[in-house]
Amino acid sequence: MAEENLSVVLYAKGDLRIENRPIPEPGPNEVLLQMHSVGICGSDVHYWQHGRIGDFVLKKPMVLGHEAAGRVVKVGSAVTHLKPGDRVAIEPGVPRDTDEFFKRGQYNLSPTIFFCATPPDDGNLCRYYTHNANFCYKLPDNVTFEEGALIEPLSVGIHACRRAGVTLGSTVLICGAGPIGLVSLIVAKAMGASKVIITERLGVAKEIGADFQLTVKKDDGAQQLAKKVEEILGAQPQITIECTGVESCIQTALYATCSGGVVMLVGLGAPMTTVPLVNAAVREVDIRGVFRYCNTWPMAIAMLSSGKVDVKPLVTHRFPLEQAVQAFETTRQGLGIKVMLKCDKNDQNP
Amino acid sequence: MAEENLSVVLYAKGDLRIENRPIPEPGPNEVLLQMHSVGICGSDVHYWQHGRIGDFVLKKPMVLGHEAAGRVVKVGSAVTHLKPGDRVAIEPGVPRDTDEFFKRGQYNLSPTIFFCATPPDDGNLCRYYTHNANFCYKLPDNVTFEEGALIEPLSVGIHACRRAGVTLGSTVLICGAGPIGLVSLIVAKAMGASKVIITERLGVAKEIGADFQLTVKKDDGAQQLAKKVEEILGAQPQITIECTGVESCIQTALYATCSGGVVMLVGLGAPMTTVPLVNAAVREVDIRGVFRYCNTWPMAIAMLSSGKVDVKPLVTHRFPLEQAVQAFETTRQGLGIKVMLKCDKNDQNP
Amino acid sequence: MAEENLSVVLYAKGDLRIENRPIPEPGPNEVLLQMHSVGICGSDVHYWQHGRIGDFVLKKPMVLGHEAAGRVVKVGSAVTHLKPGDRVAIEPGVPRDTDEFFKRGQYNLSPTIFFCATPPDDGNLCRYYTHNANFCYKLPDNVTFEEGALIEPLSVGIHACRRAGVTLGSTVLICGAGPIGLVSLIVAKAMGASKVIITERLGVAKEIGADFQLTVKKDDGAQQLAKKVEEILGAQPQITIECTGVESCIQTALYATCSGGVVMLVGLGAPMTTVPLVNAAVREVDIRGVFRYCNTWPMAIAMLSSGKVDVKPLVTHRFPLEQAVQAFETTRQGLGIKVMLKCDKNDQNP
Amino acid sequence: MAEENLSVVLYAKGDLRIENRPIPEPGPNEVLLQMHSVGICGSDVHYWQHGRIGDFVLKKPMVLGHEAAGRVVKVGSAVTHLKPGDRVAIEPGVPRDTDEFFKRGQYNLSPTIFFCATPPDDGNLCRYYTHNANFCYKLPDNVTFEEGALIEPLSVGIHACRRAGVTLGSTVLICGAGPIGLVSLIVAKAMGASKVIITERLGVAKEIGADFQLTVKKDDGAQQLAKKVEEILGAQPQITIECTGVESCIQTALYATCSGGVVMLVGLGAPMTTVPLVNAAVREVDIRGVFRYCNTWPMAIAMLSSGKVDVKPLVTHRFPLEQAVQAFETTRQGLGIKVMLKCDKNDQNP
Repeated sequence: MAEENLSVVLYAKGDLRIENRPIPEPGPNEVLLQMHSVGICGSDVHYWQHGRIGDFVLKKPMVLGHEAAGRVVKVGSAVTHLKPGDRVAIEPGVPRDTDEFFKRGQYNLSPTIFFCATPPDDGNLCRYYTHNANFCYKLPDNVTFEEGALIEPLSVGIHACRRAGVTLGSTVLICGAGPIGLVSLIVAKAMGASKVIITERLGVAKEIGADFQLTVKKDDGAQQLAKKVEEILGAQPQITIECTGVESCIQTALYATCSGGVVMLVGLGAPMTTVPLVNAAVREVDIRGVFRYCNTWPMAIAMLSSGKVDVKPLVTHRFPLEQAVQAFETTRQGLGIKVMLKCDKNDQNP
Repeated sequence: MAEENLSVVLYAKGDLRIENRPIPEPGPNEVLLQMHSVGICGSDVHYWQHGRIGDFVLKKPMVLGHEAAGRVVKVGSAVTHLKPGDRVAIEPGVPRDTDEFFKRGQYNLSPTIFFCATPPDDGNLCRYYTHNANFCYKLPDNVTFEEGALIEPLSVGIHACRRAGVTLGSTVLICGAGPIGLVSLIVAKAMGASKVIITERLGVAKEIGADFQLTVKKDDGAQQLAKKVEEILGAQPQITIECTGVESCIQTALYATCSGGVVMLVGLGAPMTTVPLVNAAVREVDIRGVFRYCNTWPMAIAMLSSGKVDVKPLVTHRFPLEQAVQAFETTRQGLGIKVMLKCDKNDQNP
Repeated sequence: MAEENLSVVLYAKGDLRIENRPIPEPGPNEVLLQMHSVGICGSDVHYWQHGRIGDFVLKKPMVLGHEAAGRVVKVGSAVTHLKPGDRVAIEPGVPRDTDEFFKRGQYNLSPTIFFCATPPDDGNLCRYYTHNANFCYKLPDNVTFEEGALIEPLSVGIHACRRAGVTLGSTVLICGAGPIGLVSLIVAKAMGASKVIITERLGVAKEIGADFQLTVKKDDGAQQLAKKVEEILGAQPQITIECTGVESCIQTALYATCSGGVVMLVGLGAPMTTVPLVNAAVREVDIRGVFRYCNTWPMAIAMLSSGKVDVKPLVTHRFPLEQAVQAFETTRQGLGIKVMLKCDKNDQNP
Repeated sequence: MAEENLSVVLYAKGDLRIENRPIPEPGPNEVLLQMHSVGICGSDVHYWQHGRIGDFVLKKPMVLGHEAAGRVVKVGSAVTHLKPGDRVAIEPGVPRDTDEFFKRGQYNLSPTIFFCATPPDDGNLCRYYTHNANFCYKLPDNVTFEEGALIEPLSVGIHACRRAGVTLGSTVLICGAGPIGLVSLIVAKAMGASKVIITERLGVAKEIGADFQLTVKKDDGAQQLAKKVEEILGAQPQITIECTGVESCIQTALYATCSGGVVMLVGLGAPMTTVPLVNAAVREVDIRGVFRYCNTWPMAIAMLSSGKVDVKPLVTHRFPLEQAVQAFETTRQGLGIKVMLKCDKNDQNP
């Protein structure tokens, strides 16, 4: 193939380039994919702006992108469940070692895992990309590439709601109405939550299914906000999904949740946080974090295909791959919800 | 009160009478209820036709009915959370002893539990009835009495789906499309099941949300049927909810369910059953029964009030209390889905 | 009965009196107990020294004591499972309301629960005491009264280890070697923990079953200590049971625990705590508190009777009831492990 | 290496041969092991006697043996965690595909799994054997090769007790005192069971830790036996681990287990079984099978190394590899408990 492989490469903090790279060859367990749709994640923008996230530091040029779907164009010698032409969603995390985490079904916690666009591993914001075939999932005909790409953020919501134990009749508080807050809302409702209240300014969440919305003002105290949530719901929520990482919001989450409930920490903020730990502990309010996700693609595809969850309204902007910088700038400014990059020159449909 | 208390009393096998009884006085922890809507259950008809169910044998006249909702007219001295005028749904099982089952949250398994219309305990198919206030749940304004009464069968579905672990993306086979099969379908979908297949003849289930329907013929073998289910779903279901109690259906359930899955035994048949136990065991297909339910009313009310589950289509017939025998005969003949008796002379609305 | 009922009554902060009170009559569901052995808990001393614990404030004189065992001398009219002469251990928390917490088996979280020696509820450090018979558990002949009294602190360890998920092969870090740290150690080993490391100064824990002991110095950093724990165990512990409530120890607990593990917060310190929440969250280290316990007495009795756990070495001091002030002073000074008060003039045996 | 590789090969039903085979070369992810100790399992004998187990049919010569430990002599190019000289226990099941079962941590249910000595996969009853390095676990110095080999049957007990939910204070009935019944007993006690009753004729189990023993006579009815168990324990057991596969014993298991309890089906008998399913279902007695095990080696090694479980008494016979036929004959006759084959000519120690 003498074709180009246009790729969005981060060279250093602030230095984002669109360049041509060779088209890779799939290894025995890999597939070569022609990328179709890749969403921009807050972490992509964070690497661009800061060159690092916590201990993950960019040390050499890295292709960005990890919310992706594409079409199989070539399969490795050992691949049997996929064939050229198959449309697939890509799970960006692939465990490298068969360690105890992987064996127990928590491969997301494996310390040596490969993960797209986490230094030093390349992502898939490009024309052609190879990936472990076991972590590529065939899309049914009635699921679009963009829905396939959105499985990545949706997976965060699934993993959070599943770890939180959302079930029939659950009452849920979601702090933050960014993409992760919104997918958590969608998933919570799909898992049977009866009432979801979400903190936000805009009003998008109500269209997507929130039962109540709470506008947070700058000087609202954490305990006051917790009280407001209780008043609106008629009782304290059983589950709070904290998607902001802001200290005062985490405090609100702990105060607001009912005894025996769960606070999920999804948003990440400062390394050290001051929180009312005793208040939560003596009421047996469990505090649980999430690290990405595992075992979510099959159920996400099942839900999208059945029509039970609808993520299409999340896509508010689309750019061709060539305009990646503009797309990143749009995300950086916080415009809209999800910006989608279209990697296939000949098919820019959803 | 010199008012009448018309009651539907089973005197013996086949001897169903409508008679006047005194209006009872509530004890300290009880409420006196003016009954509004009471559904007829298969077990009511079974007691009428056979005078017994398993080890529960009718030995003295018993008021029938346990799917019920009514209005509080008087509260006992120790009752604080209810007041006259409150509309409530009635949980028919009330533990008598604070035993280890009750303490662990499995009060349905308490051997000394009171249960409406299980000999020798009277049910609530009457005009006035007293019940433990802690097992009467206030209905929101947007939930009708009939929906309140339907919480009882709905609870069987909730308890079964909860014990089965139905969650986001679950694939479910339901054997039998009677009232319990249908509420299991409703609940499974509300808990996030992606695909539900149900065995039935009529086609009601599809309107209520079933994704697939499977017509079972008399001489279909259990393994053939299991194969058909797999073909229709594209994979073996993760969960099977068996609502018929028929031996061949239980066999189908065990063969059909995928490795690591769950078969719920909800329908009850002959005491001894011949089943492919090894086939299930070596594939780690768990077999779980249900005995009624516990801790379901609050979540059922939450779901009904939020509009997330709709049980109204289940009511196909209504009779005034005075026509109880005709109503029982309608149920016995298997006409429609759920027959509702209207106990309030002045309000026969849903 | 014209007999005396010597009782240890806290009148106000610092004002502990031993006085005679009338012998109470058991209600229908109660038993009258002749108290035998009552342990002194840190919370008893805390009320004595401070007049309050958090929101629980002493407003009127209160009998202290809640780690207790005694002999039934009279039973209420509705009591069937106990009879005079029975030796029983007393669960000090008795739910007053059949609320949703109680129905779900989490009666410890019921906000209206009665609890011995938590204001305003009287404890059982006296000669005669009445208690709900359902929360009195008959002791087998081979379990002493003192073992019966020790079930209360043991229950904290059981509840903590159970919520932590200690199981076969678990590796456990316990912070703090006071009575609660020691019972957690005993329980963790009985539940199958393979290696337990405990922070302490003295060396008692090793005799009781700790595999490793770690002496903590004043200026050890939290991350350094976490590293030391990992070096000693050969890997990070899967579970940490924090029994000190000290901020730096909670930090150590979060850093030390392995990805996917659990930190139990058992010790309680300042209301606001500064902790490395992000570190724990992104490694999916769950943080769980305990509020007392529920459903522990039957399994504790089973373990004591089978000889699988031995709590006898915990009792280091004994005083007759009349010397309660001296006993409290001994506990206040932190001498020994557990101080036991002997309430039966005629039987001061263990 | 021109050395011999003496191997125990089953050619057909009844045709067991000891022959020389080439010493294999390890693949990139494999290690070459010098075998030390290999136990004989009932399934090895069953293949020898019947040429098949259920759907697994011997179609070409197969090396027997899957309870094994040995020493690493060579490592594949990609292996980093093992080196020549390491003493290891071998987990005989190695998933071939990264399918959904494997990803969820249930790799034992993966339909394409490799498993030693299950047709057509060769076992390790030989001098030299290659195995996936990720499923070889390094033994601490204080764990012998034989203990390492015994981890395989021990794993069945661990998986069964773990799926059964054995925990502190559990009361357990074990049906059958063969090797699997005995390891289940050992594990149940280590996980905190307070009382274990086991059906057996001999009396070995009592030495190993059983609290009670029940001799079963030929014409004991299932319900009578269940009653006897209840009488001996003072209550119905919470958990029954059925290790015989005999229909009447499975019936006893279902009748005997208390409401809300669990029956584990570990022993396998006839494909179709007639059981009191309704009795179990209405008492919410769950029925669960096991298929081998997963994620057990690390915890088994932790327990053996800590001295908390002792499996050494299980080895009653030892034979050098050359006398394999005699060893198989000993097992076939049911003499002793576990027969161990010693594969290393120069080291026949435990």
